Amino acid sequence: MTNSVAVAECVKQLTALVPLWCRGYQRAWLSGDLVAGLIVTVMLIPQSLAYAMLAGLPPEVGLYASMLPLVAYAIFGSSMTLAVGPVAVASLMTASALSSLAVPGSPDYVAMAVMLALLSGTMLFVFSMLRLGFLAYFLSHPVISGFISGSAVVIALGQLQYLFGLKLAGDGVIDTIAGLINGLPQAHLTTTTIGLAALAFLFFTRQFLSRLLTTFGLESRTADLMSKLAPMVVVIVSTVVVAHFDFDAAGVSVVGHVPAGLPMLALPQLSWRSISLLWVPALLIALVGFVESVSVAQSLALKRGQKITPDRELLGIGAANLASAFSGGYPVTGGFARSVVNFSAGAHTPFAGIVSAALMAMVVAGFAGLFYALPHAVLAATIIVAVVALIDVGTLKEAWRYDRADAASLLLTFAGVVFWGVEQGIVLGVVLSLGLLVWRSSRPHMAVVGRVPGTEHFRNIDRYDVETLPDLIALRMDESLFFANAHALEEKIESLIALHPETRRVLLILSAVNRLDATALDVLTAWEETLAARGIALQFAEVKGPVLDRLRGTHLGARMKDRIFLSTYQAFTEKTVND
Amino acid sequence: MTNSVAVAECVKQLTALVPLWCRGYQRAWLSGDLVAGLIVTVMLIPQSLAYAMLAGLPPEVGLYASMLPLVAYAIFGSSMTLAVGPVAVASLMTASALSSLAVPGSPDYVAMAVMLALLSGTMLFVFSMLRLGFLAYFLSHPVISGFISGSAVVIALGQLQYLFGLKLAGDGVIDTIAGLINGLPQAHLTTTTIGLAALAFLFFTRQFLSRLLTTFGLESRTADLMSKLAPMVVVIVSTVVVAHFDFDAAGVSVVGHVPAGLPMLALPQLSWRSISLLWVPALLIALVGFVESVSVAQSLALKRGQKITPDRELLGIGAANLASAFSGGYPVTGGFARSVVNFSAGAHTPFAGIVSAALMAMVVAGFAGLFYALPHAVLAATIIVAVVALIDVGTLKEAWRYDRADAASLLLTFAGVVFWGVEQGIVLGVVLSLGLLVWRSSRPHMAVVGRVPGTEHFRNIDRYDVETLPDLIALRMDESLFFANAHALEEKIESLIALHPETRRVLLILSAVNRLDATALDVLTAWEETLAARGIALQFAEVKGPVLDRLRGTHLGARMKDRIFLSTYQAFTEKTVND
Repeated sequence: MTNSVAVAECVKQLTALVPLWCRGYQRAWLSGDLVAGLIVTVMLIPQSLAYAMLAGLPPEVGLYASMLPLVAYAIFGSSMTLAVGPVAVASLMTASALSSLAVPGSPDYVAMAVMLALLSGTMLFVFSMLRLGFLAYFLSHPVISGFISGSAVVIALGQLQYLFGLKLAGDGVIDTIAGLINGLPQAHLTTTTIGLAALAFLFFTRQFLSRLLTTFGLESRTADLMSKLAPMVVVIVSTVVVAHFDFDAAGVSVVGHVPAGLPMLALPQLSWRSISLLWVPALLIALVGFVESVSVAQSLALKRGQKITPDRELLGIGAANLASAFSGGYPVTGGFARSVVNFSAGAHTPFAGIVSAALMAMVVAGFAGLFYALPHAVLAATIIVAVVALIDVGTLKEAWRYDRADAASLLLTFAGVVFWGVEQGIVLGVVLSLGLLVWRSSRPHMAVVGRVPGTEHFRNIDRYDVETLPDLIALRMDESLFFANAHALEEKIESLIALHPETRRVLLILSAVNRLDATALDVLTAWEETLAARGIALQFAEVKGPVLDRLRGTHLGARMKDRIFLSTYQAFTEKTVND
Repeated sequence: MTNSVAVAECVKQLTALVPLWCRGYQRAWLSGDLVAGLIVTVMLIPQSLAYAMLAGLPPEVGLYASMLPLVAYAIFGSSMTLAVGPVAVASLMTASALSSLAVPGSPDYVAMAVMLALLSGTMLFVFSMLRLGFLAYFLSHPVISGFISGSAVVIALGQLQYLFGLKLAGDGVIDTIAGLINGLPQAHLTTTTIGLAALAFLFFTRQFLSRLLTTFGLESRTADLMSKLAPMVVVIVSTVVVAHFDFDAAGVSVVGHVPAGLPMLALPQLSWRSISLLWVPALLIALVGFVESVSVAQSLALKRGQKITPDRELLGIGAANLASAFSGGYPVTGGFARSVVNFSAGAHTPFAGIVSAALMAMVVAGFAGLFYALPHAVLAATIIVAVVALIDVGTLKEAWRYDRADAASLLLTFAGVVFWGVEQGIVLGVVLSLGLLVWRSSRPHMAVVGRVPGTEHFRNIDRYDVETLPDLIALRMDESLFFANAHALEEKIESLIALHPETRRVLLILSAVNRLDATALDVLTAWEETLAARGIALQFAEVKGPVLDRLRGTHLGARMKDRIFLSTYQAFTEKTVND
């Protein structure tokens, strides 16, 4: 009896480890998950090779990052449709973090890329334990938009050289443009032809194929999904052409040998030196990847009325990165384009991701050698077409019309990424997001109020014809009080006192104050004492319950005991709460 | 005629350059300013020598930083009583920034210290042009308290070696403590005797002298000021003793040759390399110095009902640092202890600072050589006594009782400074201040409301017995909407919809929403569309005027046109504003 209870308990605990979607899996979902998994795989093959190139890594590292991480996310993540794997921005950030530390493509470089995934994954895991999911919302949309657009410009410019078979030495946008212009006469003709043809085809399919297919009678959703397969078509055609005509011998740069077989599971080599070099970029990659994932996952979840839990997402993306590190991959996150395709191809559960992972594993185990003659120029073309779609002018236009400060933060972040660097750009973005928050907070909404004659109502004296008392300043604070705005309140009233030296009472109406932090308490405590020393009494009215509870234990609460009023009207007529 | 107009105009413009306090100077203020200037000078002499030692600089650099900066602040600052000059925390930050870049005391090291002052001053000047005075309030008090206490511990521990005539190699708190314990048997007896005697005397005077003098019949304020002169007494007595007994030949480390004469005015040598190495520490020193200055200046100004303008303070502290750089000094800021003494000694205007500067100039020009035999142990004792007073347990206690999150940010900042480093500590403090702000913001106060039966009033359904409609969720948002909390609103309502699938209307009551930033607009726009696609209508009620004005031009505003209600009651009974 006791034994069977123990077994039942054990089974229950094991079951709790199985994700919810898996336990309630319905057969009707299977076809959608299979189709979505397949289509995502077909997108993932060229993208994982291309983004590995962008990150300065051998192609197999991109393929490895497209297997186990998908399984890990399926188990630990909270989104039903997020497609994780290598993405453009994290690849750029990887390249930017490592290019000054090791030779791109070298074993050292690969080891550090794996280390980045390990550190990012560990950080996200720790953040998840600390329940820091709110970090998903610490960047404003304009800043995210500026960061992504800037990264897209940097990436697209950086890939142009491969389109022409050039190899530029310079870093930075200006150097790259100059190098391209100077290098153009030395462009490799065959490479350029292949590259531009691929680019033209991909742009054409993105813009027109879906519409064309619809006119041929295909359903619009199917047509849309078909057009997403274009990169794979380009990869296959160009590889066959290059292999057939031996263009690689003629100087067309190709992917070359990709080792067949699955990655070895291994613990990455740890060293304090690499940790100390890589923790800052790892943190930035982790945060950017997390913010991006949550925003994609959330917009898709909303369409089906599903829910994303940021704390669970930290765990999911963290687990995906740890899985990437343990299987020889580099930092991964939820990608926008593939997730949208996954969603509209009918993925119901993360099982679609497991399908993709299995298909990728089959491709890598059996056919990796077939990518030998795939030209770099074609990968560059797929990257360019993918990232150009990320350049987002709409948000800038909207922000410009709606809020200039937001628009300025977008433009500054964009400029920071393009002209300064991707890491500097995101740090600038964080500073601007939070700076704008502190700046706006430091200008809280406040109103001096007076009594609407004959009533118990009090209104803004600037807008209504109201009665005031000569010795009383009554100010309604319209936001919670905390370190960034407490002094603004003090300053506002001090300037009013300077205008009305006959003031003997300052009444703060705290009806909108939900919280009062330790700094605000400090400021009010010190200010109340200096006011008292100058013969002016500070009074409170309409203090919310939770705020009042907290005040009770404090020095300020003790001093204010008889000066806290239930209503503004009572303060006007001097009846205290604590009488 | 035209000529005299031009002259008058010219005089007017020149007058505008003269600070306000100067134009309206009253003779009655003069004695207070002279006395305060004198007392501050007597404090400033030992402190400027001691803080230069703390910063790893030759003594004259400290003296130079105590002349022109005071004049520059008097002209450009907004506080009547702030005493600027070398301070403990900025000196520690200078040492921490430079000790890995050059040999302390070497010409290179001095040049970089001057450079730090130049960069800090320039940054503050630029911030002042950009009107970034709000930066004074971007750190919470608990974080500032933790930072200052941590710095004080680091400084005091670092100075103990000089008290015993030891020279420790190690860095970091643990190494310093271990080094002290191991080194104690090798302590230099004469140095230790002088050092401990100075320390004992200074602690005694700080704790008891003022009280003692009062019992001898002195007025308490005078007694208090007298006790501030103790460090100068120790300096003079110890210098005379050491010089008389030739203790320096016996191995007591002394200040040595201090070049007499005023500093040469010179433009510091600029190089991109030093700028790229020093801009981060310069920024941190600038921000910390500014925050400290404003908080000291503000607390003093309040006592007299005066006003501090943070934008002007940026200019004042910036000008002081530029003046320091041009006269061979290092970063300066408003110091707490000297400002309080300046205030209570009766300083009425910044003329007191000019008096101090003039007196310092006389001392440096005529008597600098007299400091030759001043023992380093005595300077260390003055530093220790000064900084121990900065260790602030009270704020921790208060914060612990009032708000655990604030207390945790204090402790973490403290630990960061002590165990990680002063720069890392302040960066951690900034992250914690802003992180706490985002975290709190991401949990906005919201209430689902229902109708108080028979009235037009709506109240929280958790607290009142109110009527609700089965197909309507009415939620009152109690804070402004912006990037950090917009998703929380969405999540709250989505979880309510999940519980009540019969929901057809979501009514947001925006009576407390003073602002709605571009991110919140984005979130609401996307969410409104997904809700609409799911057959649920989003509605607004009690939208404030400024918010409504902004909404009008937007996509969301256009879609919501007929779903914005003047009052919650009207939304309940479905009468739209725009009908």
